[in-house]
Amino acid sequence: MKTVEIALGERTYQVRIGRGLLCMADEIMPWVAGKQICIVTDEVVAPLYLDKLRQTLAGKQVVSLVLPPGELSKNLDTAGRVFDLLLNTPCDREVTIIALGGGVVGDLAGFAAACYQRGVPFIQVPTTLLAQVDSSVGGKTGVNHPLGKNMIGAFHQPRRVLADTATLATLDQRQLQSGMAEVIKYGIINDRDFFVWLEDNMELALARDGDTMAHIIEQSCVNKAKIVAQDERESGARALLNLGHTFGHAIETGSGYGNWLHGEAVATGIDMAAHLAMHMGRLSGADCARINRLLSAAGLPVGAFTGLSAARMLELMKVDKKVRDGNLRLVLPSGIGCAEIVSDYPAETLAQTVAHFTAS
Amino acid sequence: MKTVEIALGERTYQVRIGRGLLCMADEIMPWVAGKQICIVTDEVVAPLYLDKLRQTLAGKQVVSLVLPPGELSKNLDTAGRVFDLLLNTPCDREVTIIALGGGVVGDLAGFAAACYQRGVPFIQVPTTLLAQVDSSVGGKTGVNHPLGKNMIGAFHQPRRVLADTATLATLDQRQLQSGMAEVIKYGIINDRDFFVWLEDNMELALARDGDTMAHIIEQSCVNKAKIVAQDERESGARALLNLGHTFGHAIETGSGYGNWLHGEAVATGIDMAAHLAMHMGRLSGADCARINRLLSAAGLPVGAFTGLSAARMLELMKVDKKVRDGNLRLVLPSGIGCAEIVSDYPAETLAQTVAHFTAS
Repeated sequence: MKTVEIALGERTYQVRIGRGLLCMADEIMPWVAGKQICIVTDEVVAPLYLDKLRQTLAGKQVVSLVLPPGELSKNLDTAGRVFDLLLNTPCDREVTIIALGGGVVGDLAGFAAACYQRGVPFIQVPTTLLAQVDSSVGGKTGVNHPLGKNMIGAFHQPRRVLADTATLATLDQRQLQSGMAEVIKYGIINDRDFFVWLEDNMELALARDGDTMAHIIEQSCVNKAKIVAQDERESGARALLNLGHTFGHAIETGSGYGNWLHGEAVATGIDMAAHLAMHMGRLSGADCARINRLLSAAGLPVGAFTGLSAARMLELMKVDKKVRDGNLRLVLPSGIGCAEIVSDYPAETLAQTVAHFTAS
Repeated sequence: MKTVEIALGERTYQVRIGRGLLCMADEIMPWVAGKQICIVTDEVVAPLYLDKLRQTLAGKQVVSLVLPPGELSKNLDTAGRVFDLLLNTPCDREVTIIALGGGVVGDLAGFAAACYQRGVPFIQVPTTLLAQVDSSVGGKTGVNHPLGKNMIGAFHQPRRVLADTATLATLDQRQLQSGMAEVIKYGIINDRDFFVWLEDNMELALARDGDTMAHIIEQSCVNKAKIVAQDERESGARALLNLGHTFGHAIETGSGYGNWLHGEAVATGIDMAAHLAMHMGRLSGADCARINRLLSAAGLPVGAFTGLSAARMLELMKVDKKVRDGNLRLVLPSGIGCAEIVSDYPAETLAQTVAHFTAS
C-alpha cells in the first residue's frame, strides 16, 4: 500500500494506492462525517463495484445515483439530479458524498459536494487510471457548458482518495490509454526521469503489470501534489498542469462531448503544444519527436484529426480559463521535464499549427 | 460616508454606506479586476439604476443580464443564464460580476461568480434594505431548490460592497419593511442597545429618514461583521444569524417562492422562535411580547398565518442546514440581545407552536 500526501494546511489529505482498498472499511469509515452517505457512480462502474462499496459502508444510511457514463453526463442538469436525490432523502450537512468512478463522476460529484448546503464532506474512489492519476487529486471539481469544458465549478478538496488498483483490471483498454496521457504529461512538465522510465516501461504498463501501475499512479500523484501544494487555486504554477488542455478542451467541445475521451484530446493537445513550441524554437525537434513517440506508444492519437475546422478550434480556445484580459496564455514544453506559461507566441504560428492539425 | 470592515484575513473587504455611491467611480473601479464586467440585476432595478451604474463604469466592457424580479428567479436554471451570457461574450477569468439589486440578485450573481471558471471577482451594489443590512455581507451565495431554500450555494466573499442609501428612496414600502426583520434580528441576538434604539426610532425609520437609515445599516453591518469574522463558514456562532430562518425558510418553501418576501417570513419565524422559547421557559413573556411588538411596529406579519399545514411545515423544517445527523437545531432567543443554538427542545412543544401558528 502506498500513500501520497497532498499538503494543503487544514485541507491536507492522503491518496492511498493499493489493491482492494474499496473493500477495506478501515480505509474509508474514519473519513465519513455523519450517518449518511450518497454515492455517485455510473452505469459501467455500478454493476462492478457499487455493491462491494456498499458492503464496506455497512451500518451507514447509503443512497446512490447511477448516471449514464461519459462526458455528456457532466453538466448542470445532472448536478441538479444529485441535489434532487440529496433533498428528497433528505440528507443533512453531515452527508458524505463519495464519487465511485472516473473523472466525469468525480468532477460532477465533487461539484455537487462543493455546492450542497454550501459544502459537504467528499471522498473520491477513482476507478479509472485517469481519475487515479489526475482528476481525483487537487480539488478541482466542475461541470461542462455547451460552450466550454469545466467552465462551471469549484475548488473543493476531498477528505481522502482511495485509488484501488484492482479496479484497473476491468478498465477498457481505450480508457487505460486515455489515462496515460496525463501520466506522460507529468513527465514532460516536471519529471524528466519519470518520462525516461515511461519510455522504457510503456509496454508493461499497457499490459497492466501490477507493480508498474502502482509506480505510475504514485509518481503521478507525487508530481501533482508538489504543484498543487504550491498553488492550490491556480494563480501561478498550477497552470502548468494544463499542458495540452487548451487544445484538448477545444477538441472535446468542438467535436461534441463524448466523442473523444479526455485523455485522447489531451494527447493530441500535447502534440500540438510540442509542435508549436518547436516552430517557435523553444523545443528541439528531437524532444518534440520523443514526446510524439511516447504518446503513440501509449496508443494515444497524435497528429492531424478531422471533424473540426481551424477557425472553430481557434474560437473555442478563446474561452479558456487561462485567458487574461483577452490574451490566451498557453503552456508550452521547452524540453523533457520542463514547461512554461507563454503569452508571447506569434498568433500566426499558432494559427499555422492549428491549421496543420485540423487539415483532413 | 460610513465604512464597516469585514475582517476575514486575505478576504477582508469594506462595506461602504452613503448617498450616491452608485455614481462614484473611485468607490468601485479600484475593485474591478480586468477589462470586463457583467452586471446582474432585475426588471425593477434596471430602469432605475442600470444606466447610472454603466456610466460610472465607463471605459470597461460591460454586459448585463436583467432577470424577472423575486424569489422565483433564484434557481439553478437562472444561474445557467448567467453562465450562458458569460460564455457567449466570452468573459475570461478576470471578469468582475456586479450584483445590482436586492437579496435575490445578490445571492444568484454571487453564486455565479463563485462557480464561473471556479471563481471570479465579485462586487455587491445592494439596492434594498434587506440586501444592505444582510445578504450582501458575509459571502453566503446560493440558489433555491424546490425542496429547500438556499440549498445549493457557496461561500464567496465580495471584494467590496457599496450600499447606496439613495436607492432606498425608490424602494417599495413592503420591501423596506421586509429588510427591517433582519435589522430587528441583530438587536435580538446580539445587541440589546440597538433593539431599544429601534423601539424608539421605528417610526422615523419607516419614514426613511436619512440619518436614521444610515445608522440602521451601519449598526446592522457591524453586528453581522462581528459574527462573520468569528466564524466565516458557519461551523458555530454564525448559526445565530439564522434566528427565525428555519421557520421562515419553511414558510417560504411551503407557500411557493415569491408569495412571502424573505423578511416577512423571517419576521413570523422570529415570532415563532420567541413563542417556542417562551413555552420552554427560556424567554420571559414580557420579552416575547416586546419582540412581537417591535416586529409589528415595523409593519411585519406576526402571529398565525394560513396556507400551510403544521405537518407540511414540520416536514420542510427537516431540510434545514442546521440539521445534524437527523437532529434539527434551532436558534432561540433567551432575552433581548441574546440567543442560543438549542437542540434539546421538546418535539411536542415545537409541534404545538407550529400548530398554533398554522391554525387558520
